Amino acid sequence: MSTSVTVGQLAEYLGAELAGDPAGELFRAASLEAASEGEVSFLARRKYLPYLAATRATAVIVGRDLGKLEEIPRSTAVLWVDDAHAALAETLTLLYPEGHRKGEIAATAVLGPDVQLGDGVSIGHHAVVGSGAKLGDRVCVGANSVIGERCELGTDTEIRDLVCLYPDTVVGARCIIHSGAQIGVDGFGYVFEKDRHRKIPQVGRCVIEDEVEIGANTCIDRGSVGETRIGAGTKIDNLVHIAHNVSIGRGCIIVAQVGIAGSTTVGDGVAMAGQVGIIGHLNVGDGARVAAQSGVSHDIPAGETWFGYPARERSQVMRASAALLKLPDLIRRVGRIEKRLNTEDQA
Amino acid sequence: MSTSVTVGQLAEYLGAELAGDPAGELFRAASLEAASEGEVSFLARRKYLPYLAATRATAVIVGRDLGKLEEIPRSTAVLWVDDAHAALAETLTLLYPEGHRKGEIAATAVLGPDVQLGDGVSIGHHAVVGSGAKLGDRVCVGANSVIGERCELGTDTEIRDLVCLYPDTVVGARCIIHSGAQIGVDGFGYVFEKDRHRKIPQVGRCVIEDEVEIGANTCIDRGSVGETRIGAGTKIDNLVHIAHNVSIGRGCIIVAQVGIAGSTTVGDGVAMAGQVGIIGHLNVGDGARVAAQSGVSHDIPAGETWFGYPARERSQVMRASAALLKLPDLIRRVGRIEKRLNTEDQA
Amino acid sequence: MSTSVTVGQLAEYLGAELAGDPAGELFRAASLEAASEGEVSFLARRKYLPYLAATRATAVIVGRDLGKLEEIPRSTAVLWVDDAHAALAETLTLLYPEGHRKGEIAATAVLGPDVQLGDGVSIGHHAVVGSGAKLGDRVCVGANSVIGERCELGTDTEIRDLVCLYPDTVVGARCIIHSGAQIGVDGFGYVFEKDRHRKIPQVGRCVIEDEVEIGANTCIDRGSVGETRIGAGTKIDNLVHIAHNVSIGRGCIIVAQVGIAGSTTVGDGVAMAGQVGIIGHLNVGDGARVAAQSGVSHDIPAGETWFGYPARERSQVMRASAALLKLPDLIRRVGRIEKRLNTEDQA
Repeated sequence: MSTSVTVGQLAEYLGAELAGDPAGELFRAASLEAASEGEVSFLARRKYLPYLAATRATAVIVGRDLGKLEEIPRSTAVLWVDDAHAALAETLTLLYPEGHRKGEIAATAVLGPDVQLGDGVSIGHHAVVGSGAKLGDRVCVGANSVIGERCELGTDTEIRDLVCLYPDTVVGARCIIHSGAQIGVDGFGYVFEKDRHRKIPQVGRCVIEDEVEIGANTCIDRGSVGETRIGAGTKIDNLVHIAHNVSIGRGCIIVAQVGIAGSTTVGDGVAMAGQVGIIGHLNVGDGARVAAQSGVSHDIPAGETWFGYPARERSQVMRASAALLKLPDLIRRVGRIEKRLNTEDQA
Repeated sequence: MSTSVTVGQLAEYLGAELAGDPAGELFRAASLEAASEGEVSFLARRKYLPYLAATRATAVIVGRDLGKLEEIPRSTAVLWVDDAHAALAETLTLLYPEGHRKGEIAATAVLGPDVQLGDGVSIGHHAVVGSGAKLGDRVCVGANSVIGERCELGTDTEIRDLVCLYPDTVVGARCIIHSGAQIGVDGFGYVFEKDRHRKIPQVGRCVIEDEVEIGANTCIDRGSVGETRIGAGTKIDNLVHIAHNVSIGRGCIIVAQVGIAGSTTVGDGVAMAGQVGIIGHLNVGDGARVAAQSGVSHDIPAGETWFGYPARERSQVMRASAALLKLPDLIRRVGRIEKRLNTEDQA
Repeated sequence: MSTSVTVGQLAEYLGAELAGDPAGELFRAASLEAASEGEVSFLARRKYLPYLAATRATAVIVGRDLGKLEEIPRSTAVLWVDDAHAALAETLTLLYPEGHRKGEIAATAVLGPDVQLGDGVSIGHHAVVGSGAKLGDRVCVGANSVIGERCELGTDTEIRDLVCLYPDTVVGARCIIHSGAQIGVDGFGYVFEKDRHRKIPQVGRCVIEDEVEIGANTCIDRGSVGETRIGAGTKIDNLVHIAHNVSIGRGCIIVAQVGIAGSTTVGDGVAMAGQVGIIGHLNVGDGARVAAQSGVSHDIPAGETWFGYPARERSQVMRASAALLKLPDLIRRVGRIEKRLNTEDQA
């Protein structure tokens, strides 16, 4: 499922400065150390420079910010670009055109009554689409997935295999939901009555806006009453938990195993690293950043970087850490003072 | 899948004190800010008071503990109750009767030999029920779920879509198991032999007692030998890990992404907040509470509240935190003493 | 699905020293407190000694390191062994021969074109095997699982129910992949362009070497370019996240809910306890050990034990903790010094 391109064509496509033979043909991408003839590789971090000297790639995409490099093998063409990651994304899109969408409805798929299908919809084997669901043009539903009753999926959205959308879930256009994700799940809501936890029926819904990607085995609850909402362009990694009535803004990055408790509001452009936990009913401001494994129990103002457990603003954590580093020395200093005062007493 | 009720009928049903028009008709519930005519909303926290003034809900359920409120729009009826959350639970149960159970066995479901089905059992499309399984009256198994051989499910238990019960798992009555949950999985048990980890066969079973709810993508291992057991009325959130031979008591609350290692025993009425980790072979006493992200490596006595990493009893953590806060000041004080003693030397 | 053996036969099979009646017949294993006639139990930790006196097991396997025991009921035979866990593994393998493999292809399974099946392959109901996939001899694929196009599975590998292997995933021989695991998933890779996160196509693959076990609902990403690789004999627990281009060595133990970020390299024989997080582009040396919930943001040299958040080498953490414990006392000491100096002033 890959196509080919010459080195010269790729340089032109990327607007790259080419040093080397433009005639070499490229079929695939590979890492510097694994690449061989016919493959393009890339270098974006100085850390991986040692692999460059030995590479057998036909061409390498290199960021201009890395400066002059001496280690490039003569047989390898170099494509100098401003942003190696962006150029890689473009190169891969060129070399590996998407192959999922076939516009076929598998014979073993089951569609309930009143399902509306757009043009070119694909539905995999043993998928189940509940009654009243609406699938936009070119939507793709993977094998063994379950689309609940009355769900709505926007154009070009791709649901991978073994995904479950609970009833009434709304997914926008151009989204990707990876295998094992569970969307629109009942939230965790109980009221304690006498001697037992009574379930509060979870009757809200879950809305995923356009161009959201959701990782494998991630769980997003529906609103208890009202909505859980993931803003347009937000990207969510694997094994993330997002509780009921959470609202996440546009263009956020939420890394694997993050957990966000109920009714918390996250602004636009927020980045949370892996395993972060955020308690419920908080506000995380636009553009905030939270470092890995932080435990957040207070509102985060817009634009701030927080970390730690409990998490605080970066400069506060830095000051506290600096003080802690001085502690062993401080213990010695106090000991010296006591000794001296003691000596004076005896003098 | 909702029904309707008048404001007056709802007030009577809840035993609420009504201020406003009893004739308004209620079809659905919605949050204060999203509600419109025909919808009932609720207010349980002062934090959300600002939304009350602008609500267009036909009626609002309000907790008496919030005291007199001035912000209520004239067109909105107020139902004063003692416990707004409990009243909400009752209201939602009234407005949204459950619609899952249909008593149908899908034509595409596969049932092994010797399966016993009670009255009114529902089995979804492409579900697989292994040989010798017993499903009680009105049990509901979702689409694409797999019920292992010889599993037993009590009356009125609901297994959602894409759930897997490993063979010999026992689930009580009135349980709900959400999509993607894996129950009765092989535990993580190996013995190191020469140069490799040899698997210890996991031959025990997993027992879920009555009225347990298990969240999406949660994993509960079977006993290695003996049982893993979840006590009656315990509620477990999404993405929780419970290892082999863990025993959890009755009426516990275990929030998302908690992990409990093997052979740990948890008492009755314990509450663990999100992302807590508990190491193996510990005892957590009845009624203990563990705050979010805590890392527990010691037994917790009954009734205590623990937190931190490593987790300790609350008052200990408080004392340690208070001491830490004094550290920057302490560094300055020691500096002043040294300076003074130094000055005296020179005097 | 169990067989039987006499106490004498078991003693001979284990090379155990037998004290008691060799004629008793054993059908199953059980824990000390649950065991009854016909069952064998075991004792490996002093902690569980109190259960020994009351056991009704027909035989108990006991580690020689526990020394002389007085509490053994007369009716119970004792099998003394050097390593109780190893003996248990052998006993369970004897009593519970594996029953999964049947060599049947379910009529409801769907196989794409050009699928290659070895001898004795089993495929469960509603499983989907993509075109060009190769399944070695005696491979077992569970119900409702999805094997992507061009995947390769080695001999005797067992894929449980509801597993998804993304296209081009390679799994070695004698592996076990538990239900809900998602292998070869797109990694979390974006490049920020103007006002949006553009997806970097993830075109690498995921390679699982021989004798790897992967827990339920664990997610392993494919390489972005190049590979993600799990070394032979490594065992991975439930709900673990392994990002793109991670390389894990041979014989590692990775406990539940661990997360390893992209491009990190883990050596051979590494052990990570539950909920550990490791950031990207790091090196974890051979034989390193990381304690539960640690947050690792630096390379770990071979053989070291690290813990904490942020994680550091054990002796460093110990020293820091010792200093911290002295802090409340230090505050008092400084107060006394200040008081004394103050008194001197007034004198």
